[in-house]
Amino acid sequence: MTAPHLDQLAILGAKPAFERPLPVGQLYFPSWEKYEARFRDIFARQYYTNQGPLTQELERRLEAFFGVRHAICVTNATIGLIMAAESLGLKGKVVTPSFTFIATAQSLEWANLRPAFCDIDLRTHCVTPETIAPYLDEDVSAILAVNLWNGSCDPRTLEEFAAAHNLKLFFDSAHSFGCEVDGVPIGGFGDVEVFSFHATKVFSAAEGGCLTTNNDEIAKRLRNIRSSYGAGPPVPVVKTSNGRMSEAQAAVALMSLEDFPAILARNERLFGLYRACLARAPGLRLLEPTNVSKTNHQYIVVDVEAETFGLTRDQLLRALKAENIVARRYFHPGAHRCMPWADRDSGKTAALPNTETLCERIMQFPTGALVSDEAVARLGDLLETLSKRAPDVRKALEE
Amino acid sequence: MTAPHLDQLAILGAKPAFERPLPVGQLYFPSWEKYEARFRDIFARQYYTNQGPLTQELERRLEAFFGVRHAICVTNATIGLIMAAESLGLKGKVVTPSFTFIATAQSLEWANLRPAFCDIDLRTHCVTPETIAPYLDEDVSAILAVNLWNGSCDPRTLEEFAAAHNLKLFFDSAHSFGCEVDGVPIGGFGDVEVFSFHATKVFSAAEGGCLTTNNDEIAKRLRNIRSSYGAGPPVPVVKTSNGRMSEAQAAVALMSLEDFPAILARNERLFGLYRACLARAPGLRLLEPTNVSKTNHQYIVVDVEAETFGLTRDQLLRALKAENIVARRYFHPGAHRCMPWADRDSGKTAALPNTETLCERIMQFPTGALVSDEAVARLGDLLETLSKRAPDVRKALEE
Repeated sequence: MTAPHLDQLAILGAKPAFERPLPVGQLYFPSWEKYEARFRDIFARQYYTNQGPLTQELERRLEAFFGVRHAICVTNATIGLIMAAESLGLKGKVVTPSFTFIATAQSLEWANLRPAFCDIDLRTHCVTPETIAPYLDEDVSAILAVNLWNGSCDPRTLEEFAAAHNLKLFFDSAHSFGCEVDGVPIGGFGDVEVFSFHATKVFSAAEGGCLTTNNDEIAKRLRNIRSSYGAGPPVPVVKTSNGRMSEAQAAVALMSLEDFPAILARNERLFGLYRACLARAPGLRLLEPTNVSKTNHQYIVVDVEAETFGLTRDQLLRALKAENIVARRYFHPGAHRCMPWADRDSGKTAALPNTETLCERIMQFPTGALVSDEAVARLGDLLETLSKRAPDVRKALEE
Repeated sequence: MTAPHLDQLAILGAKPAFERPLPVGQLYFPSWEKYEARFRDIFARQYYTNQGPLTQELERRLEAFFGVRHAICVTNATIGLIMAAESLGLKGKVVTPSFTFIATAQSLEWANLRPAFCDIDLRTHCVTPETIAPYLDEDVSAILAVNLWNGSCDPRTLEEFAAAHNLKLFFDSAHSFGCEVDGVPIGGFGDVEVFSFHATKVFSAAEGGCLTTNNDEIAKRLRNIRSSYGAGPPVPVVKTSNGRMSEAQAAVALMSLEDFPAILARNERLFGLYRACLARAPGLRLLEPTNVSKTNHQYIVVDVEAETFGLTRDQLLRALKAENIVARRYFHPGAHRCMPWADRDSGKTAALPNTETLCERIMQFPTGALVSDEAVARLGDLLETLSKRAPDVRKALEE
């Protein structure tokens, strides 16, 4: 395959640049040999679920990886977030950003709490004491911060802020597996952190996730919530559920952990290629990782400045879709504009100006296992052409 | 292996009758060839989760199996119960039996509802209009009935009762996969039914479950709740979650469905062997399936009459455990005596005399894939010996 300079655009009637859709998810495909061996092992052992040996091994390895006392694996991160909220014994409201995946806020509702949506920093896309402070009142019992993209909040500042206000602090770290702050892995901050091992994430169990904490009491509660019939000595928890990870999930995660250095290297290379491409596309700014000393480079997040590039974010998305490039607007709309909060809080939600701005401008580009170096180069050429022929593209989109 | 008449008992110092523990769970082990082919297929397709082709195939097959309009697969039955409760738009209290797996009642709490625990019929172990009626008041919005063991409630009578009282009706049918009432499969009654495909159930996805309904609106809501980002056109649901079934789960379930006739035949044979054995053990009564025209024979449920047998249920359990027979007291204690309800409702919970009685007398014996015909015969001999030597056993247990 060569990467010709494309002056033909699919949106203007040419053939799409890619035959097979380019996805934004990381995706993870172990070798068949590795995969077959793991599943043969599960089959021979006749032990499929309920905190089996592979799940236990995974938890021990993740505790070492994160440098935490407890890693508690779960069937998915949404259930993990619900469990985290429940384990902290919270009441009333939890301050959390609106600029996040909808599950962050939804998890609070399942634990019978209410989100108080706060704004974010325009540069880092994360919450700060300044964006949280306006939403504090006597009904607020915790902060659920979100570590976004390839970076993170400033966890130590948030820990100090939470302590000063006598609030619990937990993190949705779905994006931040393998990231570090001043050499300390994300996973050991606040009361609990929640990671996603969904198929689209940098670390995969197909479906899955884990909770990390250094607090023995919280860990006991989480283990009891995870399985209806408890695990270890029962501790006072109000509700139990089923968040168990199966051996099939743990097997994929163990393979993913083994291959993680190679995955990181690939992501870094793709990120570098995008950086070079996007430097040639005025008006498209690649979001560099913030607050972290080590990143996983798992997302290619771009801020579209329509005036300079010539197309709005949404126009660009449509033009790329015609080329079989499945870029995504993430996050749009903000959670505060979604059900049930848009209705419930209508007129009461304070303005979230930075959130509103970013919801209109931010998008993700394809990366991960199914995206080749050559595909990024070709995509770079396409972006140049799209910018040059922006008036024609806009016209075609209006028709 | 022969089945000698054992006059030596482990509880009295002899060697345990079984080297490897005999479990109560059904368990399911496909052939390696079948298993390997399914997982190779998933691997080749590079599609691991998010309503993949195997999950879709499974749902179509289950709809045919149950004879319902919608079968909606989920990652486990607890999440399924929570989704069901949420989908019905309920408020306040839901009448449900205390004599059930704890997840039945817990699921209501996650949907921000409260269980009103009712009693059960002493013969069928299930709720009836008579046991429900005393708990109806203006705060009750639904009945969550439980189809237990190898039988079921009387679903049509409950449907009429619920309609007459303007209540929603849904079923925890975790035990009742493959059972029929007057030739109609369990799965099509009430507003929704919830099935478990846990590894210990007669139909297995290792972890998994499904929801069945003939109501298109409820089905749409369930599909939206199942995946945070919805599926199909969004419908007004208050909360979404992640209840997705992965392709690995669907693969095991599809194999289980293929082997289901053989599993049923095996269960029926073991049930017959137990029936013969227990006829020789005075004071141990096997619970025959109730209300069903077809059963899955998946549980061996026994009522222990201590005066006749010579040992109480709990004494018998301990003596069997010494033999490596993992019989279980199920259910004990009733949900109304568990956290959080025991505390919350202390002094307010009306007496549940039948529940209290059964919680002290009922137990499950081993059955399923790891229990041979010979093991049942040997267990029968053991029970005879235990009954004969009951005074010695009681004395040994007191020491």
